[in-house]
Amino acid sequence: MIQVLLVHHFGLLRSGLAALLNDAPDLEVRDVPWSSDPGRLRVLRADVCVVDMDGPGAPDTAGMTELCRHMTSAKCGLLVLATPGRPGALRRAYDAQALGFVNKDATPQKLLEGIRNVAAGKRYVDESLAHDLLRAADMPLTARELSVLSLAARGATVSEIAGRLHLSHGTIRNYMSAITRKTGARNRIDAIRISQGAGWV
Amino acid sequence: MIQVLLVHHFGLLRSGLAALLNDAPDLEVRDVPWSSDPGRLRVLRADVCVVDMDGPGAPDTAGMTELCRHMTSAKCGLLVLATPGRPGALRRAYDAQALGFVNKDATPQKLLEGIRNVAAGKRYVDESLAHDLLRAADMPLTARELSVLSLAARGATVSEIAGRLHLSHGTIRNYMSAITRKTGARNRIDAIRISQGAGWV
Repeated sequence: MIQVLLVHHFGLLRSGLAALLNDAPDLEVRDVPWSSDPGRLRVLRADVCVVDMDGPGAPDTAGMTELCRHMTSAKCGLLVLATPGRPGALRRAYDAQALGFVNKDATPQKLLEGIRNVAAGKRYVDESLAHDLLRAADMPLTARELSVLSLAARGATVSEIAGRLHLSHGTIRNYMSAITRKTGARNRIDAIRISQGAGWV
Repeated sequence: MIQVLLVHHFGLLRSGLAALLNDAPDLEVRDVPWSSDPGRLRVLRADVCVVDMDGPGAPDTAGMTELCRHMTSAKCGLLVLATPGRPGALRRAYDAQALGFVNKDATPQKLLEGIRNVAAGKRYVDESLAHDLLRAADMPLTARELSVLSLAARGATVSEIAGRLHLSHGTIRNYMSAITRKTGARNRIDAIRISQGAGWV
């Protein structure tokens, strides 16, 4: 039997996904809410952990990385449910060692295939995410630019960002200009919108 | 039999929600993807239309209003699945004549109760959304301020917003200052972040 841990931030959708897997004779499914302390999920031993990686209430980057770290050290394969068109989110999941990638717009059959492959230690990529994965390799921003952008997206002023990152106001302004140019945006707000849409921040 | 039309932008989550309703002997469920032309959904006669109102890929404000208009004229009650903490989205659904409000974090039982109430022409509000509904009554921004904010959130410059709304640059700047003050934000980007979080835009 494959032990599946299904993590979703919303109870109704979590129950629904669990209902899709209930008829599979080779799976034993437990569904749990997303916890901001992924260490707690680790004690729930599983072969495969299925997690919805975005949407309001979903784990943020730090939470996702922490979850992956715990699951990997517990020899549990991670399968992420991904929204198409958000290469940045896929990239983070890939960097965090996720093995399986299933499109949220897929059929239940794909989810089953993904779970069985990941349980066997194999990588599984839903082919409808291939284009996003290719784009995910072309991350336009540097790690430092991403830090600046993340703080700006949370409403921090140039002064606050400069203070947080121990850099001068001028340097932060230069980073913001580079970010705006590289994302093909019209201004800072547009750069944040584009980057959030792609899942980079 | 209650005819239920289940609308969700993601196939996997749509199938999951449908699976939750499959065992109910009094429901006949069809699940369809969200269509940017809600008139197409109208031809699918139903007593209750269940729609997930937010998350990436969900209907935007215009789409939601259009869907509600079509469903109401087809004598189909609308039940929305709502993310807690987004009073603005609830307000739009309420203004668009939605009858049922179920928290996405609810149990499947609540969804069933909601569907049966709406099918009987009754309003149904999941009590866990009560606080958000109260907040939804206190919309801090005027319709004009919302227009300015929506354009700004999509990356439009002050000039572009002024051009679109046939107003002067100074007036747009005044609106942006009022929006920043009323939302308790630190700056424009922060005002957009707060308003998007609450579902106002």
